[in-house]
Amino acid sequence: MPDEVTIVEVGPWEGLQCEHRYIPVEKKIELIKKISETGVKKIVATSFAHPKSLPQFVDSEQVMNALNSSSSVIYLAAVPNEIACRRALASRVKEVLIWVSTSETHNMRTLGVPVASTMKEIQLIAKICKENNVRIRSMIATAFGCAYEGETPIAAVRELVLKLNKLGCQEVCLTDTHGMANPKEVRERISHLKRELPHVTFSVHFHDAKGMGIANGFAAFEEGVRIFDSAVGGIGTAPDMPGGSRDIPTEALVFMFEKMGVSTGIDLDKLSACTDLAEKIIGRRLERSNSVGRATKDRDVVTNPLEELPV
Amino acid sequence: MPDEVTIVEVGPWEGLQCEHRYIPVEKKIELIKKISETGVKKIVATSFAHPKSLPQFVDSEQVMNALNSSSSVIYLAAVPNEIACRRALASRVKEVLIWVSTSETHNMRTLGVPVASTMKEIQLIAKICKENNVRIRSMIATAFGCAYEGETPIAAVRELVLKLNKLGCQEVCLTDTHGMANPKEVRERISHLKRELPHVTFSVHFHDAKGMGIANGFAAFEEGVRIFDSAVGGIGTAPDMPGGSRDIPTEALVFMFEKMGVSTGIDLDKLSACTDLAEKIIGRRLERSNSVGRATKDRDVVTNPLEELPV
Repeated sequence: MPDEVTIVEVGPWEGLQCEHRYIPVEKKIELIKKISETGVKKIVATSFAHPKSLPQFVDSEQVMNALNSSSSVIYLAAVPNEIACRRALASRVKEVLIWVSTSETHNMRTLGVPVASTMKEIQLIAKICKENNVRIRSMIATAFGCAYEGETPIAAVRELVLKLNKLGCQEVCLTDTHGMANPKEVRERISHLKRELPHVTFSVHFHDAKGMGIANGFAAFEEGVRIFDSAVGGIGTAPDMPGGSRDIPTEALVFMFEKMGVSTGIDLDKLSACTDLAEKIIGRRLERSNSVGRATKDRDVVTNPLEELPV
Repeated sequence: MPDEVTIVEVGPWEGLQCEHRYIPVEKKIELIKKISETGVKKIVATSFAHPKSLPQFVDSEQVMNALNSSSSVIYLAAVPNEIACRRALASRVKEVLIWVSTSETHNMRTLGVPVASTMKEIQLIAKICKENNVRIRSMIATAFGCAYEGETPIAAVRELVLKLNKLGCQEVCLTDTHGMANPKEVRERISHLKRELPHVTFSVHFHDAKGMGIANGFAAFEEGVRIFDSAVGGIGTAPDMPGGSRDIPTEALVFMFEKMGVSTGIDLDKLSACTDLAEKIIGRRLERSNSVGRATKDRDVVTNPLEELPV
């Protein structure tokens, strides 16, 4: 049986979150619907963060309401706190995304509260999600280092994984928020955490620092991870880190897996059309690495170098 | 003892080879000298291909003559045939680069002759290099697939490795000419070849198809490879494949290895200045993936989302 992975498309959330200009709600919906046609199984569609924190997501209800609930795609929404979670549930969200940072500085800068407060919020979220039969996907930010606080001890990651798991989070996504992971470390951390906490499902979220995101993804895959975050066209970065490393482009991740004979269920051509649309919507060219170019006749002019040489 | 790798900088050869516009010889020399100051140990500085085939390298003698032979850097020159090799030796080249393809079509398109003729040339080159105490670095093109002929059987690679090794090539560089390798296959091929041919030193040359080059490099490293080709700024691609995948950027490879605690001996800041210079010389912006961005004060406006929510 061929190996399979699940790609979680985070572009409509983490990508659009970085845009200072408001993207009209119909454009967001158009992009999400187009991504839904690629074969991707999960899309983080919006955030229910307070619009004062993230004005881009003032339209989260409208976005969720527009998405066909009968679709085979699961649409997640990011919920930074209990009230956001209640709003998400009111919009019939089936799976919420929560996160907490190993770094107090990063937690304060992105959630506005200390780690302990976030954990209390998550406790409340876990309770109402259980009552409403809504799945929680949890993420640990700065799991491979923090731009503010430096190295992240693996013990700090393990402790958070344990806490989240005890609160009912079956899946924990190890997030390289600031693009600091390297594939050797990825291998070591995941191998260690899986050995210590074999009952947890680990997923990964890498940023593409100097093109290392794909290598990190490969290392995680080899350690048995089968759920990967990425963003169409690589849009997005850590919102507190402008000019930081982009998200892994979904097309790069899909390209690698399909080349390795690992099924993603995603159509690369359709995905490429989504990148075109994302470019149009955000009004900026996205970096694209070519796969294989077209053979050309130009070089047929090559003369036989053995026959006529200058010396 | 910390692990070490050798980076072979191929930008001045494979990168400039792709430029249709002639780059003045003094610019080439300036770039090579600047790269020489980064700590890199080997640079492929030019090609002694016939100028009718590669007009860019009409100045190969001048380039080699300008490079300080007392430098700690080894300057290689590409030699597609015996006469080119004699010219290289006359310019006091200490190490020549030869190559042959697993694919007849690719060999014909880039060397202008069938594989069997190239092997005869390599035999002549090996003889004169031995007489002159010049090292040969050999490359096998299309070792991971060919855009014209499709999959490359590993048996075809093994056969060429054996032949090259018998002719005196101690190092064989497995080259992913058309950006078709994936890290799983890299691991399998290298592991197989090293097991079958333990006396050969394998190096690798990857192109960066959809950002997979670094992942391929990581897989090769884990299989014990310690010599890696890359090009400053990722300049260059297969010359017969315009719009094909670029070379792995040297800065990306160095960034990964240094992050992994593997010493390259190369200064990343100095390398970055070389990319600036390469951009200037070729007159085109090069894609750059950020490592870690700068933290910003922008997001300090984040209000406490727990205190004031709309619902």
